[in-house]
Amino acid sequence: MCKSIMEKAIEQADKTMSQGIGGPFGAAIVDKDNNIYVASNSVLDSHDATAHAEINAIRKASKALNTHDLSGCVLYTTCYPCPMCMSAAIWANIDKIIYGCSAKDAAEIGFRDDFIYTFIQNNCDNENIVELKQQDREKTLALFKKYKEKENIIY
Amino acid sequence: MCKSIMEKAIEQADKTMSQGIGGPFGAAIVDKDNNIYVASNSVLDSHDATAHAEINAIRKASKALNTHDLSGCVLYTTCYPCPMCMSAAIWANIDKIIYGCSAKDAAEIGFRDDFIYTFIQNNCDNENIVELKQQDREKTLALFKKYKEKENIIY
Repeated sequence: MCKSIMEKAIEQADKTMSQGIGGPFGAAIVDKDNNIYVASNSVLDSHDATAHAEINAIRKASKALNTHDLSGCVLYTTCYPCPMCMSAAIWANIDKIIYGCSAKDAAEIGFRDDFIYTFIQNNCDNENIVELKQQDREKTLALFKKYKEKENIIY
Repeated sequence: MCKSIMEKAIEQADKTMSQGIGGPFGAAIVDKDNNIYVASNSVLDSHDATAHAEINAIRKASKALNTHDLSGCVLYTTCYPCPMCMSAAIWANIDKIIYGCSAKDAAEIGFRDDFIYTFIQNNCDNENIVELKQQDREKTLALFKKYKEKENIIY
């Protein structure tokens, strides 16, 4: 029987989880021509905290399609995306996200993504999570001014 | 005169911005041994919507240090991080983020990261930004159960 897109994502996650490559998370992107790009979490193997399944799928699809703009694409993911992956999908202009397990389901097996959602919802104001400090604004602002002049954009 | 870490990030961003590689954003990570990993936005050149300066710096430092755990590292960034980069820094266990320009400064040159913050702060409930739909929970939950059994974890 032909596998559904979600089943392909599950299968990939199952494989890499068993190999110790990453956690039990898979994703697949379907583009406008029905091409499917399947990926899974590879944080442990690639030593890259950003290598979540959804990010890996976005990178794979972008590389294949030769664009950072994934408008018209649908992202399937075995679990509700964390804020990093949610934001990445939005930056990539993905239209729709179809997810399997909920954030609560993930928490029940030890993945507590919700603390980052809570941090953001509280205006990123919790030094126990990460300390934020502004510095050198004038120097960095000069770069922005240069960009604005270069692009000749009026906002 | 010796350049500050923020100046190194600015210099790198200036260079790649001028080459059309990406927007006017640079970042640098300083590890516990004072090694510095500098990167900049390469979204346009790499065709990867996730290739923000902070994400690129995290990947660079992780690769050099051979770990996804950047505890004890400080992230310098020319601009207040977007939610994707903020979350990535938290996943990587970065302790402190030092930023130059504010989100408002970025908005003034056309980069409106704040809509993703607003989306998350409104519980990701805005189909105009991205539509979210749950599907196949039972199938994906089986993967989580398998992980739990494999890891023999009790939560």
